[in-house]
Amino acid sequence: MSAKLKSAVLGASGYSGLELTRIIERHPRLEKPMLMRRDSNGDGAKDLAEVFPELSGNGGYPLRPLSWPELKREGVELLFLATPHEASRSLVPEAIAQGLRVIDLSGAWRLKREQHRAIYSFQDADEATAAELTAMAVYGLPELNTDRIAAAQLVANPGCYATSVILALMPLLEAGFIDRERGIISDSKSGVSGAGKAPTSRTHFVSVSDNFSAYSVFNHRHLGEMVEQLNLNDADLTFTPHLLPIPRGILSTIYVHLNRPTKPEEVESCLRDFYSGKHWVRVFATPKLPEVQFSLHTNYCDLGFCLANDGQRLILVSCVDNLLKGAAGQAVQNVNLMYGWGEREGLQ
Amino acid sequence: MSAKLKSAVLGASGYSGLELTRIIERHPRLEKPMLMRRDSNGDGAKDLAEVFPELSGNGGYPLRPLSWPELKREGVELLFLATPHEASRSLVPEAIAQGLRVIDLSGAWRLKREQHRAIYSFQDADEATAAELTAMAVYGLPELNTDRIAAAQLVANPGCYATSVILALMPLLEAGFIDRERGIISDSKSGVSGAGKAPTSRTHFVSVSDNFSAYSVFNHRHLGEMVEQLNLNDADLTFTPHLLPIPRGILSTIYVHLNRPTKPEEVESCLRDFYSGKHWVRVFATPKLPEVQFSLHTNYCDLGFCLANDGQRLILVSCVDNLLKGAAGQAVQNVNLMYGWGEREGLQ
Amino acid sequence: MSAKLKSAVLGASGYSGLELTRIIERHPRLEKPMLMRRDSNGDGAKDLAEVFPELSGNGGYPLRPLSWPELKREGVELLFLATPHEASRSLVPEAIAQGLRVIDLSGAWRLKREQHRAIYSFQDADEATAAELTAMAVYGLPELNTDRIAAAQLVANPGCYATSVILALMPLLEAGFIDRERGIISDSKSGVSGAGKAPTSRTHFVSVSDNFSAYSVFNHRHLGEMVEQLNLNDADLTFTPHLLPIPRGILSTIYVHLNRPTKPEEVESCLRDFYSGKHWVRVFATPKLPEVQFSLHTNYCDLGFCLANDGQRLILVSCVDNLLKGAAGQAVQNVNLMYGWGEREGLQ
Amino acid sequence: MSAKLKSAVLGASGYSGLELTRIIERHPRLEKPMLMRRDSNGDGAKDLAEVFPELSGNGGYPLRPLSWPELKREGVELLFLATPHEASRSLVPEAIAQGLRVIDLSGAWRLKREQHRAIYSFQDADEATAAELTAMAVYGLPELNTDRIAAAQLVANPGCYATSVILALMPLLEAGFIDRERGIISDSKSGVSGAGKAPTSRTHFVSVSDNFSAYSVFNHRHLGEMVEQLNLNDADLTFTPHLLPIPRGILSTIYVHLNRPTKPEEVESCLRDFYSGKHWVRVFATPKLPEVQFSLHTNYCDLGFCLANDGQRLILVSCVDNLLKGAAGQAVQNVNLMYGWGEREGLQ
Repeated sequence: MSAKLKSAVLGASGYSGLELTRIIERHPRLEKPMLMRRDSNGDGAKDLAEVFPELSGNGGYPLRPLSWPELKREGVELLFLATPHEASRSLVPEAIAQGLRVIDLSGAWRLKREQHRAIYSFQDADEATAAELTAMAVYGLPELNTDRIAAAQLVANPGCYATSVILALMPLLEAGFIDRERGIISDSKSGVSGAGKAPTSRTHFVSVSDNFSAYSVFNHRHLGEMVEQLNLNDADLTFTPHLLPIPRGILSTIYVHLNRPTKPEEVESCLRDFYSGKHWVRVFATPKLPEVQFSLHTNYCDLGFCLANDGQRLILVSCVDNLLKGAAGQAVQNVNLMYGWGEREGLQ
Repeated sequence: MSAKLKSAVLGASGYSGLELTRIIERHPRLEKPMLMRRDSNGDGAKDLAEVFPELSGNGGYPLRPLSWPELKREGVELLFLATPHEASRSLVPEAIAQGLRVIDLSGAWRLKREQHRAIYSFQDADEATAAELTAMAVYGLPELNTDRIAAAQLVANPGCYATSVILALMPLLEAGFIDRERGIISDSKSGVSGAGKAPTSRTHFVSVSDNFSAYSVFNHRHLGEMVEQLNLNDADLTFTPHLLPIPRGILSTIYVHLNRPTKPEEVESCLRDFYSGKHWVRVFATPKLPEVQFSLHTNYCDLGFCLANDGQRLILVSCVDNLLKGAAGQAVQNVNLMYGWGEREGLQ
Repeated sequence: MSAKLKSAVLGASGYSGLELTRIIERHPRLEKPMLMRRDSNGDGAKDLAEVFPELSGNGGYPLRPLSWPELKREGVELLFLATPHEASRSLVPEAIAQGLRVIDLSGAWRLKREQHRAIYSFQDADEATAAELTAMAVYGLPELNTDRIAAAQLVANPGCYATSVILALMPLLEAGFIDRERGIISDSKSGVSGAGKAPTSRTHFVSVSDNFSAYSVFNHRHLGEMVEQLNLNDADLTFTPHLLPIPRGILSTIYVHLNRPTKPEEVESCLRDFYSGKHWVRVFATPKLPEVQFSLHTNYCDLGFCLANDGQRLILVSCVDNLLKGAAGQAVQNVNLMYGWGEREGLQ
Repeated sequence: MSAKLKSAVLGASGYSGLELTRIIERHPRLEKPMLMRRDSNGDGAKDLAEVFPELSGNGGYPLRPLSWPELKREGVELLFLATPHEASRSLVPEAIAQGLRVIDLSGAWRLKREQHRAIYSFQDADEATAAELTAMAVYGLPELNTDRIAAAQLVANPGCYATSVILALMPLLEAGFIDRERGIISDSKSGVSGAGKAPTSRTHFVSVSDNFSAYSVFNHRHLGEMVEQLNLNDADLTFTPHLLPIPRGILSTIYVHLNRPTKPEEVESCLRDFYSGKHWVRVFATPKLPEVQFSLHTNYCDLGFCLANDGQRLILVSCVDNLLKGAAGQAVQNVNLMYGWGEREGLQ
């Protein structure tokens, strides 16, 4: 085997960053990653095992200040950004200018439509460069944008909710099964790690446990990338996120109306054909439905469905682990594409 | 104050039965209830505190075998059935024949439409009596059927999910806001006590914790009572129940399409007017939404909503404690109506 | 019934403050409490229902700035402090000077021994007054200090852990069963509300769920009050608190060595005799042990035990709801003593 | 690399069996295991993915009836038993007679002392063979019995609690630090998977969540193997298991008294020296303590400690994942020893 690829992770001290670090470390084609922090990262940890003691006993995970020259010196070719979108928006132009290939886990570079600019509020130092990067950024859903990801220098890794919704809807939308006029609804539920590691009153254990709630109704940020990728108008899709009292995992219950009375086998075939040869999407035979636990700690997106007796009301159920297929796992799946490796490498 | 009313509970060893016992005991107009068990109840407990040690230290809760003569001897006027629907179906005719007023917490007597008979499979010993009782049974949703409950001899206490869905939809349906043609969807989520106390692989802690799943898609039993009470056709309403990793509480996220562009204030007024003077329904001012915790351990049904910018896509959120407003609390609210007491009595 | 007593709560926006507000409101001898906040309380809520929406629909819970003249004008006689110990230390001298009776839920006034001053670090403005108040403060464990609480002007409400440990050990220590030379160990476990409402990395849902940990080993603040009340030396008692992934409840597993081979009946008699006539302590018959759920949402302290075959190794298990018997419930139990009411009043 | 070793798992449909199947499948030296069920296993599943849908999408996990000839035909050399102890007791003699090497995850073959026979009640068909196998069975704690495991034909894989307690105590006991006269206490807490997959009232979600309880006080089965391995008398060790509201993970808080005033560095050195070169035990620097989460989903046993100011009261904290280091992971660690492979192989 040839020499392993050198990569770096910026933002490893968040939940996605931790998962990313672990996956990269075990990946047979990747070296243990270089971990970097921005100066503003004030917890002062010198090693990631101080933040996550579960990493103890594996030789250390030094956290160094971000330095482009040092990345070059170390031969790093590939950069993962697990940073807030504001940081990604300012760092990506620099990284691209350095000739690095970049996978950004934030929402900074996911949206193309002009009317969606307001979803993430950026102050781009250089508007022209930002526009150029927006144009070149590839939305990193490997099952859909396979070829473009393979060639990409900048991959905008999808949002966790968006992954669960887009993968469920795309096959049936493309095949023309769905009546868009009737509207599409995704009632989605996520574990708490999706809200990030910062302690807030909303993530306090006593607020979350024995509780369940909807939030960001009609205005969650992921709606933008869903409608763009699914080629819908904003009003075609109603997306309601909820907070589950579990640490991780997403389940989306998606309601669509079909254009004509349809048989379950037709729906199942449509899904199976679309994901034929795609290892990381599992289609369940109706009426068996995926549950959050089935894909937890894996890179799978699990899809299932039930069809009403009328053959037109269809419910899709889609599950992902928000930190893996919804973030770090998908990032590495993208890397596998970018370097021509097998799609399962390092993700089993 | 006059003498307290004597009541009996059959089926106190389930979750609803426990709540019922506690509420009745504290109710200023009711005596501590007589607790009875059917012979087939094999755990052999002689006192409910053996089953629920949390009841210790309050003078004992003897469990006696069901006996109509003994109920008469003790002067019992009112019977609560917290039994499986098959048991309720055979016991209610006997109880009514004894002249008792009955509140049945099971689904046995909730449905009127002929086409819904198959939802619960009964073998009625006496078809004529069963038909008569079906006709006289009043669906016990106190906010809707106030007068009929007051006069009822047999109250069919609503299902927990049904309570959350009917109370949310009724005001807007009655006022003609909702476009039924577009279909109504209730994506509902319940804590595990809704699945009963019998240990099954589905209620095992390891199956439920860190998990979330849909079940009984398109064929949950409560759909029947929802469409009957809301005066809908079966296909107008899509109801999807899910299992939450919490012990109790229900949240329903309900999607409707309004007939015309509407303002949030109109929706709020409609809800507030409908429940004006009804203590046990709380309407939240948009965009504040109810959460499961807010109504836990209370008899409240909490309602909130969000309206899309287009003024037509409306999301209602409805929460109840499945064991209280969804079962035992509502039963006692019905008793308050049946005996002309204040609707809050014994439920604070 | 004579006019109801007027009381005020300072610090109602914490978990204990919420419970206190609810209990007082339902107490037949107490008016709905006046709720006050200190100026430094920056969340700006004008009504407690903004902080705790579960309080909606009951007529409002206005939060007013603390003002001694206003308390006097309103006829308030009794003040509950649910404030941090630093605040209690400075506010109590003022409140006492106003002639109020005070129940302080913080640790500020619990400790008498000079060597324990360092446990809570105070800067008393007036050392002489502080010393005087320290002397007059009564440790508010109603089962032990019944008469002194009845006459007290200042009650130092016990810590939650301390309540569970002291009530378990006192009967056997007083009766001379326990070999102190062998050391006493309390391995205690608490739900997260015991850590307070401030969001921290330690109370983040993802940190707590699916986890369990020990903390403050050998140096938890409650150790001081335990040894003082039990009349032990600091080194006699090893106390190890742990964080449970539950919102509330405490279970202490306590290990002692008895002076001589003893029969289970002797232990049980000792406990039962000690708490004879005390409603809020329940003694379980061995080998039945209390569990956290049994006393949740109640004011009970549940006690049970197992004795080894050798008759000398004894394990006591003690459970309380940390927010009720461990805080707000016990505070109201103390009020019942202070005003000569029944010990169960308002606490059922 | 030479051909992979063929192994079989009996009892894969339990929690440990699932973990075992997953680890073996990923192990670079082992083939995907043959999965077998006993005839009495009545759920009738033909493939393990029917029982555990999380296994979908990996080519199937056929469950076949146990057959010694078929094992031979398939070239199986190594058998894992994840069966109840009664089954293991009768199957192991047959398997050994077939010339298989056996790792038994049950308690059937762990105990040597005659007075412990009553802990597991067996009816051995052939007493002489049973005695012989008892003598040859090696207790499979790889950090302690390294050489004997390497040569073993029958490995009795340790209990989960026992692993956490023995690994914490052995170094200090062997080095003579601990005053046995004063007694040793292990207050241990386990997640629910330790209670097995059978649904019972004790494993019902509503019984476990928001709860915590002690059980099997003074008479848990694992006490026998602890005292045997630690070379103690039964009365030297008090072991109290508790049920945590989490799916997996064990934390033991262990109280010992040291023979003389000792410095923390001495304790730390003792632990570090003992486990020097042993990858799967991590020693934390005091006062940092392990938490359940740190070793979850890993094969680590994490050890930490705190020493009182008196230098004699020592608290050890020990964590393992009960299904990995406490069961399936440890079984594979034993396999690595038995076949001379690296101790980390297949366990990262």
